[in-house]
Amino acid sequence: MPALLKRVAFQVGLVPNERAFALSSVSNDGHYISLRPFVKPQGPSEEAFPFEWAFAGTNKNVTVTQVKPNVVNQDFNFWFDVNAYLNTPNTHRGVIKTTWETWESGCLAETGSVFPEGFNNQGVAFFELWQPLDPTKQELVMKSERNEATADSAKSVVFKVAEGSGYDGLLIVTGKWAQGFLSKQNVGKIDGLNFIRAQETETSTVADVLFEYGDECNKFPRRFNGVKLGDVVDVNGLKWDVIESYQ
Amino acid sequence: MPALLKRVAFQVGLVPNERAFALSSVSNDGHYISLRPFVKPQGPSEEAFPFEWAFAGTNKNVTVTQVKPNVVNQDFNFWFDVNAYLNTPNTHRGVIKTTWETWESGCLAETGSVFPEGFNNQGVAFFELWQPLDPTKQELVMKSERNEATADSAKSVVFKVAEGSGYDGLLIVTGKWAQGFLSKQNVGKIDGLNFIRAQETETSTVADVLFEYGDECNKFPRRFNGVKLGDVVDVNGLKWDVIESYQ
Repeated sequence: MPALLKRVAFQVGLVPNERAFALSSVSNDGHYISLRPFVKPQGPSEEAFPFEWAFAGTNKNVTVTQVKPNVVNQDFNFWFDVNAYLNTPNTHRGVIKTTWETWESGCLAETGSVFPEGFNNQGVAFFELWQPLDPTKQELVMKSERNEATADSAKSVVFKVAEGSGYDGLLIVTGKWAQGFLSKQNVGKIDGLNFIRAQETETSTVADVLFEYGDECNKFPRRFNGVKLGDVVDVNGLKWDVIESYQ
Repeated sequence: MPALLKRVAFQVGLVPNERAFALSSVSNDGHYISLRPFVKPQGPSEEAFPFEWAFAGTNKNVTVTQVKPNVVNQDFNFWFDVNAYLNTPNTHRGVIKTTWETWESGCLAETGSVFPEGFNNQGVAFFELWQPLDPTKQELVMKSERNEATADSAKSVVFKVAEGSGYDGLLIVTGKWAQGFLSKQNVGKIDGLNFIRAQETETSTVADVLFEYGDECNKFPRRFNGVKLGDVVDVNGLKWDVIESYQ
């Protein structure tokens, strides 16, 4: 089933906090994207690039193993990682092993370690707490017994930039919510990056933009209804393959 | 402004968790009630009394001090504390000093210590993370820029059991959500306790019960519209004073 998760807490070291409006979209087939824009960017660096982090992958870029009824291991080997794209120093590369525990309240507690100095050096433990949302709602509605059935059967559509275009990109629609990245290959600077978060409304078949970053956001798909697996969608000259469509 | 807060994490010791569906209601004038029923009661003790904790007070039972723009101290001296009522051993008595920090994400991080062995002995630090909800919605809708104005102007009504009735009781309505306790004086056992969480719907002027505990829940008010400050409401023989009404 598709999922839309809002992070409510992030902890590295002794004190938790949450400075981002982080949403992770997971498609029915297990493709994923996580965009983590700062709520209040502070200073020139965050203002120029207002993201704590962003990454994405297909279901080939994650290994999921059930450990116990309420515990899952997820080993991520991101296809796209903004730190790798920008070659940001002292950030993790390669597989990140994470453990996800579902609390009785319904939240998901993620724990793991990153190795910004390489795997031969000391890792840094992290904790993230995620609140599942009902992606069929426009507002940030917590998933609960009341809406579980509709949330779990939400629409799930995934667009991936066609090979040979000179770009990498993935846009995942879960319910009404879409998140996407589009990166120009071989640029390695923030100029090559584009991100979008958009939302379908009752009144329009074109998703409303909630935020966008980058000069080429007009190349993201914003019409999701009726697309079928295998379709190729041209958006202002960029071709996107529909690699998943449940609707 | 009234508030409805859902706890998303509770930490004592090294590992956070959340086993309760804890909601705290705070009225416009600062009266408060927090009910913390377990999501999945485990074992005979929790099944007999399925609450992690419950407490309530009027605005006379809390001192609020602004420390910084995003930090508030709240010193609680509960009028009603289920642990005190039941005389549960090794639980805190007296003032609890807490600090509330508003994160950039909008969540409230509460820290403090309790002294289950008395103030002359070692305290126990705790951390609780609260997600503000829009109380005007039936679903669990996170408060956000989108709904802040309606959330902050939500209805706020408070009923308090009249003196001399042999009961203590408080019921707080914030938006569509009501939470109440009713305790028979001088019983000191779970037989003397009643709790209710109820919600107004579009279709009825009588609030729907979301959960109730105790044999005398028919004595809780369940009609909130139109009551005025100073009104006395009789519910199956029990008189409640309306000590606050903004609607």
